[in-house]
Amino acid sequence: MDWPLFLTFLAACGAAAATGAMFNPGAWYDSLQKPSWTPRNWVFPVVWTTLYLLIAYAAMRVAGVAVSADVTGGAAVAGTTPLPGSAVLAGNVVQALAFWALQIAFNTLWTPVFFGLHRIRAAMVVMVFLWLAVAATTWSFFGVDFWAGVAFLPYLVWVSIAGALNFSVMRLNPNAG
Amino acid sequence: MDWPLFLTFLAACGAAAATGAMFNPGAWYDSLQKPSWTPRNWVFPVVWTTLYLLIAYAAMRVAGVAVSADVTGGAAVAGTTPLPGSAVLAGNVVQALAFWALQIAFNTLWTPVFFGLHRIRAAMVVMVFLWLAVAATTWSFFGVDFWAGVAFLPYLVWVSIAGALNFSVMRLNPNAG
Repeated sequence: MDWPLFLTFLAACGAAAATGAMFNPGAWYDSLQKPSWTPRNWVFPVVWTTLYLLIAYAAMRVAGVAVSADVTGGAAVAGTTPLPGSAVLAGNVVQALAFWALQIAFNTLWTPVFFGLHRIRAAMVVMVFLWLAVAATTWSFFGVDFWAGVAFLPYLVWVSIAGALNFSVMRLNPNAG
Repeated sequence: MDWPLFLTFLAACGAAAATGAMFNPGAWYDSLQKPSWTPRNWVFPVVWTTLYLLIAYAAMRVAGVAVSADVTGGAAVAGTTPLPGSAVLAGNVVQALAFWALQIAFNTLWTPVFFGLHRIRAAMVVMVFLWLAVAATTWSFFGVDFWAGVAFLPYLVWVSIAGALNFSVMRLNPNAG
């Protein structure tokens, strides 16, 4: 574990988690028509807490690959001539971390738009960007470190469910926002 | 310019910018007691647009250092044995990018808390975290690339002004939120 890296990424997740703590579902959400498969309210904070730990851990692993690759100069054995592929690796790592920053910013945005502004359609647009950012992060993480990619899969699944829920609520409540 | 990296970081800024577009000052903000030096409302989007371009550019430069350092294996001349300091460099880059993710998440959080929830004290807490994240990013960017650090200085100055404004509004309106 690289604790400074892990805790920095987890603190970034803290900003997204804070939106869930401060923008509550409340009477407006309760009054909306929702599909039969809508998870109970208590499920969301439990799932999100787990996902934030996973994606902070995944980001730490990807960042750590850059450090260990650089120790060996990108070569298989330390002290030997760097392989031509090492620049590709470093490029993959920094692009993957850029996607990670993108997804956490859109994750922080969604809750205030949906639960704060009650703008279901605008939240759906944010959700599409969030889903694309999470998919891009998952894909790029697999290109750097297998287990970092695996750690992102539950997040991609959950954002797909959340997106389907946002879409269904939008269809079932055409006049709600 | 590394356009894929720049545009990914700029898109992350887009999430933060969207909060400014969607959570408007409105009658509540107009009614607050504010210090004499409060900037006019039109100043904020102009300044933020400039700052988002600068910090996306700065992040691209820092990420680019990892790529170019890895091309040379961290050594001064390509093909030579990597220097012992190269692991430190890669570690600096990924920690700096982790701080960048942290600051953009807290940047996205502040506007909904202040203008959405009208929670001036909670926004002040978010602002302290945002200031610390921007200061840590600026400091770590200077450790990787001089001009990336310079590009972050206006942001650090502006967040200091925004923090002073949040604090002043909190003191002048003790019953407002």
